[in-house]
Amino acid sequence: MAQKIKAGIVGYGNLGKGVEKAIAQNSDIELVAVFTRRQPDQLQSASGVRFEHISAAEQYKGKIDVMILCGGSATDLPEQTPVIAKTFNTVDSFDTHAKIPEFFETVNAAAKQGGTLSVISTGWDPGLFSLNRLLAEAILPQGKDYTFWGKGVSQGHSDAIRRVPGVKAGVQYTVPVQSVIDRIRNGETPDLTTRDKHLRECFVVAEEGADKEQIRQAIVSMPNYFSDYDTTVHFISEAELKADHQGMPHGGFVIRSGITGEGTKQIVEFGLKLESNPEFTASVLVAYARAVVRLSSEGQTGAKTVFDIPLGYLSPKSPEELRRELL
Amino acid sequence: MAQKIKAGIVGYGNLGKGVEKAIAQNSDIELVAVFTRRQPDQLQSASGVRFEHISAAEQYKGKIDVMILCGGSATDLPEQTPVIAKTFNTVDSFDTHAKIPEFFETVNAAAKQGGTLSVISTGWDPGLFSLNRLLAEAILPQGKDYTFWGKGVSQGHSDAIRRVPGVKAGVQYTVPVQSVIDRIRNGETPDLTTRDKHLRECFVVAEEGADKEQIRQAIVSMPNYFSDYDTTVHFISEAELKADHQGMPHGGFVIRSGITGEGTKQIVEFGLKLESNPEFTASVLVAYARAVVRLSSEGQTGAKTVFDIPLGYLSPKSPEELRRELL
Repeated sequence: MAQKIKAGIVGYGNLGKGVEKAIAQNSDIELVAVFTRRQPDQLQSASGVRFEHISAAEQYKGKIDVMILCGGSATDLPEQTPVIAKTFNTVDSFDTHAKIPEFFETVNAAAKQGGTLSVISTGWDPGLFSLNRLLAEAILPQGKDYTFWGKGVSQGHSDAIRRVPGVKAGVQYTVPVQSVIDRIRNGETPDLTTRDKHLRECFVVAEEGADKEQIRQAIVSMPNYFSDYDTTVHFISEAELKADHQGMPHGGFVIRSGITGEGTKQIVEFGLKLESNPEFTASVLVAYARAVVRLSSEGQTGAKTVFDIPLGYLSPKSPEELRRELL
Repeated sequence: MAQKIKAGIVGYGNLGKGVEKAIAQNSDIELVAVFTRRQPDQLQSASGVRFEHISAAEQYKGKIDVMILCGGSATDLPEQTPVIAKTFNTVDSFDTHAKIPEFFETVNAAAKQGGTLSVISTGWDPGLFSLNRLLAEAILPQGKDYTFWGKGVSQGHSDAIRRVPGVKAGVQYTVPVQSVIDRIRNGETPDLTTRDKHLRECFVVAEEGADKEQIRQAIVSMPNYFSDYDTTVHFISEAELKADHQGMPHGGFVIRSGITGEGTKQIVEFGLKLESNPEFTASVLVAYARAVVRLSSEGQTGAKTVFDIPLGYLSPKSPEELRRELL
């Protein structure tokens, strides 16, 4: 067996912990260290991995083949990816769609300078959903595509609920509208906004003695977040919230409905049903980390996205095995 | 706008006609000629395309960027692809799974010799389904995947029906078992054979005066084809057959049910619902023809499969456009 890929993790939140677990599932990759802004000696992991302060990363030059960046897109990654890309190959899940072109240019310059390779914006959206939007559009140029998200927890909307007076705790799920999905699967191509495609379902724990109807009204009429959506509010106990709503499920669908020839309908659909959004995103990062190391060893440098990488590079199997087993 | 890609079609059956229609949907590709083993002056097309005998192909060297091979996998492609690959870049939909490794080697040698590039075994299975099997396995190494085909016409099984005494005409549909799909979507990972996953539905026109019960028995008890499957036989009139069963619909699903972390369920699904199997396959061929020409212009030679090609190469859009619009 070839030498194992040596990986580092930067950031030890839900995503970083997911990457640690995902690496354990891949026998060709080993985790060298986790880098954190916290005090490394205050962190521990059942796997016994080494923790280092992020300022020590430079010392691992030559000892780590790829850094898997697990920070957030708002502030962590715009700062960390370009710095780390000067020294290490990287992979990240930068997901602020509007800022991707700018982020790409910055990381590309840093990686070119460092002679390293960075794959940005992997994960599932952007990432696998993007691949499927591209694939279906390239095959069916005449058509329309639809992205649905959920059923899954929206952190921003959950936070908004918790700011309503009288609310002790709460979780908000974004839910794709089944009847709309069914119409598209049956070949209709309606014009739809995000709010036509999704419902908002809230599970709320009220403070003792709070007026539930008042809370419900405050939520469903909240501008931007809920007022334009079909919103349902369920009141539950704290015990129920703990028992049933601690997971981080998510998922969704990318559906393209296209036409070939003289009005022949063709539908391409990709879907995910995830019990844990961060663990799945982490697994995508790890597969792309493998691709980064291979492409880098072939001499490629700069920034790349999921669009630039042959899918064969994601698999530990050889091209011969892939042709024999999976083609 | 850059120069158009000049394409040729080899073979003018359902698939070749589908490619002609698909090229018409892509403004960056033009169809130079259709090559056929028939008498070219006896063929015509509404689009006014030029027909040539296949023996004249050599004369188009330098005038065609890619040949889109539309013959069958049983005898046409094993003979044609290696010959044509010595002179032209090619793309084909060779789909005899068991013979792909051997076919790859033969075409690779021919294309290396010719300094050309050949993408073999595109289409949807092999092709898009293969990509999704690879992608889901690379991301979820712990898991199980399921391929379902249909609802779609099986030519082999339709032929088998038509050989039964008393049968005038007939069509057989392979139908995935919905209850099995539902179990997998809900996270179960049963062990299943092809016959556990599919039903066979037959629409039969009986000869006048034929014993329908005898025909039904002959079909459902036919070894290899039907006896091990849950098979339904519907008797219909010739008019109904013409009205409702002339299309070539197909489709199917690739579902991977995997585990991350400590038993977290993650499900990845890709599905197609096609009103015309040959027109969709043709559209996949045309997108890969675009990729072939680009990769060839970068100096790549030999045989490749869908696993070797970055998806960005399938799209007429620039990398900047793809990042901005689809990532």
